[in-house]
Amino acid sequence: MDEFGIIARYFAPLAKDAGALKLKDDAAFISPRPGFDLVISTDQIAADTDFFPHDPPATVAKKAVRVNLSDLAAKGAMPEYYLLNLALPSLREEWLADFVAGLGEDQREFGISLLGGDTSATEGPLSISITAFGFVPQGKMVRRSGAKVGDTVYVSGTIGDSAGGLAIFKREKHQLADTQRDYLTGRYQVPEPPVMFGARSLGRVATASVDVSDGLIADLGHLADASKVKIELDVEAIPRSEALRAFWGDGVDAILRAATAGDDYQIAFTAPPEQEAKIRDAADRAGIQVTRIGLVRVGEGVVVTHEGQPLAAPRQGYQHF
Amino acid sequence: MDEFGIIARYFAPLAKDAGALKLKDDAAFISPRPGFDLVISTDQIAADTDFFPHDPPATVAKKAVRVNLSDLAAKGAMPEYYLLNLALPSLREEWLADFVAGLGEDQREFGISLLGGDTSATEGPLSISITAFGFVPQGKMVRRSGAKVGDTVYVSGTIGDSAGGLAIFKREKHQLADTQRDYLTGRYQVPEPPVMFGARSLGRVATASVDVSDGLIADLGHLADASKVKIELDVEAIPRSEALRAFWGDGVDAILRAATAGDDYQIAFTAPPEQEAKIRDAADRAGIQVTRIGLVRVGEGVVVTHEGQPLAAPRQGYQHF
Repeated sequence: MDEFGIIARYFAPLAKDAGALKLKDDAAFISPRPGFDLVISTDQIAADTDFFPHDPPATVAKKAVRVNLSDLAAKGAMPEYYLLNLALPSLREEWLADFVAGLGEDQREFGISLLGGDTSATEGPLSISITAFGFVPQGKMVRRSGAKVGDTVYVSGTIGDSAGGLAIFKREKHQLADTQRDYLTGRYQVPEPPVMFGARSLGRVATASVDVSDGLIADLGHLADASKVKIELDVEAIPRSEALRAFWGDGVDAILRAATAGDDYQIAFTAPPEQEAKIRDAADRAGIQVTRIGLVRVGEGVVVTHEGQPLAAPRQGYQHF
Repeated sequence: MDEFGIIARYFAPLAKDAGALKLKDDAAFISPRPGFDLVISTDQIAADTDFFPHDPPATVAKKAVRVNLSDLAAKGAMPEYYLLNLALPSLREEWLADFVAGLGEDQREFGISLLGGDTSATEGPLSISITAFGFVPQGKMVRRSGAKVGDTVYVSGTIGDSAGGLAIFKREKHQLADTQRDYLTGRYQVPEPPVMFGARSLGRVATASVDVSDGLIADLGHLADASKVKIELDVEAIPRSEALRAFWGDGVDAILRAATAGDDYQIAFTAPPEQEAKIRDAADRAGIQVTRIGLVRVGEGVVVTHEGQPLAAPRQGYQHF
């Protein structure tokens, strides 16, 4: 089957928006939505780096989509469309069919559709580059730079689960129950970014926000830098799943490991204390956990505290090189 | 130098639009432009497939940009922004500095700026994925599907130069003067899509248009299919450069080779005969060549004719798999 056959059979059914022109033209288009800005995020994932070559194709598809949706969620944007660039080392139609099924499931879950893309052969590892598009009310994109002294610092979900899952795949010893093991490996394969919370509520409560992908401490560092403030982070407040606590324990070192590992695809944000009740309501409605983890102070950088005392924490995250 | 240092030193200076947020946030944004649709095209190029690993970094950058600008030109869109995803097998700052210099030159030439992107390491070949954004008056994107029986078929520029350049790199024998050789290899390394003609004039004259990247005959086949018409293509009318004619000669086989090779990044379009004068004027103002190469008829597919008689031409183009 040639490229055009692949597009017609597998990808065209995902392209439901009129602007995608059924993937039959040179380009797609998006009509202007008066009163809204278009928010754009792009991220690539590759076999051996971000997933295992033998991961189920449907979970690979979902990870590729969701690492981008977490960026849109962190900016308060409602996702709408995505472009897909695939570099395939070989063309196995069975793999492609399962991959496309995974895309279709996430299209339904998040209300998005395929706008276009490009498929090519590569001699390198399988690589997937997605560009996601969403809308926010004009001028209201939540930036990294708006945190104010006195704000509370929050994070969605739990931190370190994906790193725990990766450690299990890398054969780190554990005595977890099967359900705990599967929970952690599942979070490595399929992140759960707070898409609806981000799209519906973040813009009404947050002063600043960042996608947690390089590691919680590192990403809060980016937010602190952009906002020209200091963030004081209470290490024991960092939310961890029961499964991760059963795996790594509750020691400060284990928490720091979780907070520097990256690959979480949650969001960290700041908001004035008076927004607390609204944030609780919004999290409940979205069915997600949101946890207070620190405070915004005068100064710079991230200070991690344990029982009120600063720790000499490594301010590090995932390094791409 | 880590990823953040690379972004700050090399890429941030290219991000001149406010919506790029100096590449310091999780996402970029584009404000709505009332009365205009946003046109989006994405294409990836890879070492060994689309360029040589030892090609000058600045020409690699320009090829990556221009294979996308040709899509926007074919849709009648004025280019504005691009996203850049780079997968690098190794990080040599000297290479990156030259690559970024090439991007900067094309930003100035075409009036575009960097909106965002992603840089990662790969064990595979160097790969560059660009997504380009442009604007067209709302509802006026030139599609593949509007050709009408009786329209004239045109193509911009000359066809086959890039394929000639590639043949020279692959050591096909020739007796060309140095300037002719350099012209052809230059067109392989740096395409010359008719960006300003497309953005300023195409939408006012064309009924349908397609980017010529898979091969002139194949791409006209896509246009014929989408428009549900037949295209009659006069093989001797297909424009070739003096250098290519000196290399491959003027025989029908040489012309068909040029017309099936791909990698041209010109545009082929249809327009009613009464637009002829306006097309000539627009081409002159843009400083490009536009050539009449055929007619739109009732029927389907592409028929290549030689001295009025149909040839049994292979309807083929570049196959990605």
